[in-house]
Amino acid sequence: MHEATRILLDESRIPRHWYNIAADLPVPPPPPLHPGTREPIGPDDLAPLFPAELIAQEVSTEGRIPVPDAVLDVYRLWRPTPLVRARRLERALGTPARIYYKYEGGSPSGSHKPNTAVPQAYYNAQQGVRRLTTETGAGQWGSALAFACAQFGVACEVWMVRASYDQKPHRRSLMRVYGATVHASPSPVTGAGGKILAADPDSPGSLGIAISEAVEAASAADDTRYALGSVLNHVLTHQTVIGEEALEQLAAFGETPDLIVGCAGGGSNFAGLSFPFLREKLAGRIDPVIRAVEPAACPTFTRGVYAYDFGDTAGLTPLLKMHTLGHDFVPDPIHAGGLRYHGMSPLLSHIYELGMFEAVAKGQRECFAAGARFARAEGVLPAPEPSHAVAEVIAEALRCKESGEEKVILTAVCGHGHFDLGAYDQYLSGEMADFDLPQERIEASLTSLPAS
Amino acid sequence: MHEATRILLDESRIPRHWYNIAADLPVPPPPPLHPGTREPIGPDDLAPLFPAELIAQEVSTEGRIPVPDAVLDVYRLWRPTPLVRARRLERALGTPARIYYKYEGGSPSGSHKPNTAVPQAYYNAQQGVRRLTTETGAGQWGSALAFACAQFGVACEVWMVRASYDQKPHRRSLMRVYGATVHASPSPVTGAGGKILAADPDSPGSLGIAISEAVEAASAADDTRYALGSVLNHVLTHQTVIGEEALEQLAAFGETPDLIVGCAGGGSNFAGLSFPFLREKLAGRIDPVIRAVEPAACPTFTRGVYAYDFGDTAGLTPLLKMHTLGHDFVPDPIHAGGLRYHGMSPLLSHIYELGMFEAVAKGQRECFAAGARFARAEGVLPAPEPSHAVAEVIAEALRCKESGEEKVILTAVCGHGHFDLGAYDQYLSGEMADFDLPQERIEASLTSLPAS
Repeated sequence: MHEATRILLDESRIPRHWYNIAADLPVPPPPPLHPGTREPIGPDDLAPLFPAELIAQEVSTEGRIPVPDAVLDVYRLWRPTPLVRARRLERALGTPARIYYKYEGGSPSGSHKPNTAVPQAYYNAQQGVRRLTTETGAGQWGSALAFACAQFGVACEVWMVRASYDQKPHRRSLMRVYGATVHASPSPVTGAGGKILAADPDSPGSLGIAISEAVEAASAADDTRYALGSVLNHVLTHQTVIGEEALEQLAAFGETPDLIVGCAGGGSNFAGLSFPFLREKLAGRIDPVIRAVEPAACPTFTRGVYAYDFGDTAGLTPLLKMHTLGHDFVPDPIHAGGLRYHGMSPLLSHIYELGMFEAVAKGQRECFAAGARFARAEGVLPAPEPSHAVAEVIAEALRCKESGEEKVILTAVCGHGHFDLGAYDQYLSGEMADFDLPQERIEASLTSLPAS
Repeated sequence: MHEATRILLDESRIPRHWYNIAADLPVPPPPPLHPGTREPIGPDDLAPLFPAELIAQEVSTEGRIPVPDAVLDVYRLWRPTPLVRARRLERALGTPARIYYKYEGGSPSGSHKPNTAVPQAYYNAQQGVRRLTTETGAGQWGSALAFACAQFGVACEVWMVRASYDQKPHRRSLMRVYGATVHASPSPVTGAGGKILAADPDSPGSLGIAISEAVEAASAADDTRYALGSVLNHVLTHQTVIGEEALEQLAAFGETPDLIVGCAGGGSNFAGLSFPFLREKLAGRIDPVIRAVEPAACPTFTRGVYAYDFGDTAGLTPLLKMHTLGHDFVPDPIHAGGLRYHGMSPLLSHIYELGMFEAVAKGQRECFAAGARFARAEGVLPAPEPSHAVAEVIAEALRCKESGEEKVILTAVCGHGHFDLGAYDQYLSGEMADFDLPQERIEASLTSLPAS
């Protein structure tokens, strides 16, 4: 075991390929369906929204997808990211476990999102696309895409949920610094937004409405496409740079993982960390337990159903076979905005059904307590999303303290919490609520599932 | 010339010694004086405020001060920091200059301040000090000290200028996450604060008042000392880890610097970057131009006088020979809070008088424009303080474009701007003011200088 605290890799070690797990699955995932015909959708159905190369990646069964040189060149600004042994946290907990975290908060926008924003902007620019539209909640994804678009001279237009636009202006400002146009959603500039404003001028908006607006704007113009920050296969594939680097770094520490823990909202961070390790597990080279952590307020793996559902609230997307709470499920307002999604990546949902990883759900107070504890020991303040993973890591490390097991635990701190200090302050003031999610509420929203 | 974008160093390359430039100066700097006796102050005068080891470092003429193992162990959490070739900025400017920046924004609190906060907390803990007090403006220093104190089990009490406490709560919350107690200053818990509140219950506070409160609280308790985030010799010495690493990294790029640019408020970032290069220059091994950038609203080098003055507004500190605008100078409210100090490090002031570096002043609009331009090219958003250095780097790179010179320019981005997005938003909205500083205002405040 190497006695280092951080393993840094030279930029020559940035992965040259993304790992596409579809190549190695024993059973292929069910295809997306056209909501009208119920037939599998084809590339032509997606062409108004995505460039050809991303559509090809979405359905590819090649295991290795080359990272273009121009994308590598931007990755060099912050990749490879460090893998850190959390020695000070181990000491504070008094655990015999050895804890490692991959830290993605040093990226330009402060999270793992640029890992996919950069290739998405690149492939669009290559195809001559002049403008990308997207939606964003608290702004992690919007700021990552705004940065990426600035690198390739593509205009970026973001619909930001009005509640966040008004109350959390900082990531909105970051998008503007990068040159993006930011609309409060619902906005008067789209038909979908205008209709909602006409009915309710004070609508606080929702991610579902913002998606509808961004999709509508992309569909309406030939030179414009749409970009999504999670859920889709190609997004998960791009994020595997996290796990590929971590594999190499953990080996440099001389370690083999016993447990891999990641937070999961749409699934891109969890998949990005775990897929390369799943490949090694499928090949029989390692045998870690892999565990997703989701918020108790939006428990798609642990309390949702596995069924065809819409990806958005308005029902504009293809039908996706996934773990879902129903597309009109509105999660309680927990601070981990990135985990408040009614569904889950279809690819991850399929792999979960195959029994290849497990999942647990956590209330937000436990997560903020864990995030603050982590910060005091390690310095880095985790965003509310990765604090879910940190909470499970701490719980496991304390179980190891009881049992005496020297487990090797790996996680990812996928973003820093410097944009989330209001939430931490609320936690420290004792004013943070945990939400109860009665089974009836889930069952009621599941009635919104399209008939199968 | 190495074609890399970032040079990372292994943690074994964290400097084992801080560089104390006092060892190499042709003339020693004038001593601090007791304000009553006008005699040079001795260690006993400082013992109520600082631990013995820091007092020893303050007056040391040893060139190499060893970094204790326990401090190295905390530095490992984020050091060495990367040195980055700003290739994308060079391309955007069309300059033949080669631009390198040392990036300190990846530290736990997001700036270079932990480089000195950690050893200060350590030496206090070693001497049995149980509590550290300090003041903070926008909170960079307070959050760094709060983090450092958490590492060594020292309580941390911060007086934060009320205007920032109310309007910029995020770094206040970060201090609380690290376990610090944060008072809005003026506060009722000190005599100095209570007196001001009695006269003006709505006082917005000032850095001068906050210093008075922190010093009073430290003086009043045997187990309590005071910590300062800039200005003093030992603080500048601790920051030389920046320049020592940059020396090694620039050599790994195969480069020799022609120009080194740093922003200067109290001086710790500028000194930390430039002192190791000054050592090499004094030894005749390199010959770069070294340039400090200060705000036009607080131009201590370029428009101040070199005289004995108080370090604080209330006149409680020893008299320091330094560049000053007078201790009752109140800078206009520019956003670079870390550069709003009426004086300048006495050590840097002395070296400036020796002609060893030059200085320029910049208005804040030019700096925010440069910060946004830098972010669009490089991803990293500089805080308002380093955006002053970035503005000068861009100006020089554009001069190189005219002249065709392939200058090698080195700077430091000493903190990220994720806490400063409100200011960037104001800039982007066209609502940011530049301030005019009439000569009469400087002359009026210079009448506050103590008679010599």
